[in-house]
Amino acid sequence: MRLISYLSDTGPRTAVARGDGYVDLHQADPLLPTQMKHLLPMLSMHHDAILEAAEEGRLIDPARLRLLPPVVEPQKILCIGLNYADHAAETGATVGDEPVVFNKFPTCLRADGQPIELPAVSKEVDYEAELVVVMGRAGKNISREDAMSHVAGYAVGHDVSARDWQKGKPGKQWLLGKSFDSFAPLGPELVTADEIEDPHNLRIQCRLNGETMQDSSTSQLIFRIDFLISYLSQVCTLMPGDLIYTGTPPGVGMARNPPVFLKAGDQVEVEIEKLGVLTNPVIDGK
Amino acid sequence: MRLISYLSDTGPRTAVARGDGYVDLHQADPLLPTQMKHLLPMLSMHHDAILEAAEEGRLIDPARLRLLPPVVEPQKILCIGLNYADHAAETGATVGDEPVVFNKFPTCLRADGQPIELPAVSKEVDYEAELVVVMGRAGKNISREDAMSHVAGYAVGHDVSARDWQKGKPGKQWLLGKSFDSFAPLGPELVTADEIEDPHNLRIQCRLNGETMQDSSTSQLIFRIDFLISYLSQVCTLMPGDLIYTGTPPGVGMARNPPVFLKAGDQVEVEIEKLGVLTNPVIDGK
Repeated sequence: MRLISYLSDTGPRTAVARGDGYVDLHQADPLLPTQMKHLLPMLSMHHDAILEAAEEGRLIDPARLRLLPPVVEPQKILCIGLNYADHAAETGATVGDEPVVFNKFPTCLRADGQPIELPAVSKEVDYEAELVVVMGRAGKNISREDAMSHVAGYAVGHDVSARDWQKGKPGKQWLLGKSFDSFAPLGPELVTADEIEDPHNLRIQCRLNGETMQDSSTSQLIFRIDFLISYLSQVCTLMPGDLIYTGTPPGVGMARNPPVFLKAGDQVEVEIEKLGVLTNPVIDGK
Repeated sequence: MRLISYLSDTGPRTAVARGDGYVDLHQADPLLPTQMKHLLPMLSMHHDAILEAAEEGRLIDPARLRLLPPVVEPQKILCIGLNYADHAAETGATVGDEPVVFNKFPTCLRADGQPIELPAVSKEVDYEAELVVVMGRAGKNISREDAMSHVAGYAVGHDVSARDWQKGKPGKQWLLGKSFDSFAPLGPELVTADEIEDPHNLRIQCRLNGETMQDSSTSQLIFRIDFLISYLSQVCTLMPGDLIYTGTPPGVGMARNPPVFLKAGDQVEVEIEKLGVLTNPVIDGK
């Protein structure tokens, strides 16, 4: 199933794809929740009802469909650094036996089509294509064996990064450089886990103004999804709707010679096989 | 005004202090919101109604009062590192012209009286007494001049830190070492900004099993609250209920000779003048 969140006249709602259109789940079946965070822990329980809604429900007028990120207000957006062997090499980093973990804030999220806003205070804003894991069930100290049963689905993500802030601030914390408003585009859809036979075998690409800048496969992930969920859940309880941005493949702008940074008027597309294309224009922010 | 969140039979609710007791705001006046995050942006508008509720409302049965952190599910918990000159000195760090910023997750929050859970995977869990700023109004690019008008109030906070994870992980990101479940006690109360004439002149102390370990004043803050709000809001939109843990004074356990780390059976009290005492027992977690 392919799910979205969208902004209705009464606030965020959840819808399921039918062909090129979408059916509002709660309108089709009042027993289905309106919010993605409430739907995710019950996906398997509601599986048949969602399929039925998709078949029989009324399509939302496409002209009125204001897309939101698939999860509107996740409690946590965890991010993994240097998780593709080739990308770690291009940044000059060595790979340890544990992942580099940082995070972004919910105010970073943007839907497909919404602009990435270049901050006035950064001159080095870079793109990073990423596979995003969407958690379905809450859990602490999740074993690697159980980890994949906690995954609700996957989405295409973009980990926009202000390199001058990421690398050049006191204490070397990446948080601020990764957390400007609009620095976490996500979507357009959440594809449920049952549709993705092997999340570690998906082509992942980033195109800047049509030119391919990153082209790799999630088979290159150093720390795999089951490991990441188990590792992170040692620290904090993972909640339904929590997002894990799993890292980016080689080809980022800062590693190029000369470096390539985003500028107003650019368009960035992130594409992941079976998950879709996430397209965001770049504008000057405030 | 002194406000709390507590767990009623129908979920989290907001209450105001009268003497040693508390009055449920929404029960006293159905026009007042049930949730602290909804109340905070309207504090000044609701000021008289809250005072009236405090005077005339029915006290909650103390035996049934299950305290929650004053803000239950903040969108962001921003934290400032090395923000007291003496503490920066004891850790050997140099102070730059910008603060060190990291964060914690909402799953870290605990109320007064709730246990700090020592993770099985850390052997170096340390205490840090902190003044916490609670944001009232949303804002981006807030000027220093306007900053204090965005503050709803203050609370006593405890920035529990697993030093082995904070300092010893790849990429030197502090996030995980600061983000174990239960690593952000907060409360018991939120004291509204109008009660605190000068937040930069409050005695702040930490006691471990009754022994004073930290004893300083918020007058020692290197980066002051108006600067922090302005600085952080360059990056991300600050939301009602967002928390800023403003840093800790000297005397932390890792800087002692020999180092002092928390163990099961300990009790930690953080006290800030005019804001109250936050007491949490320490237990072995899972």
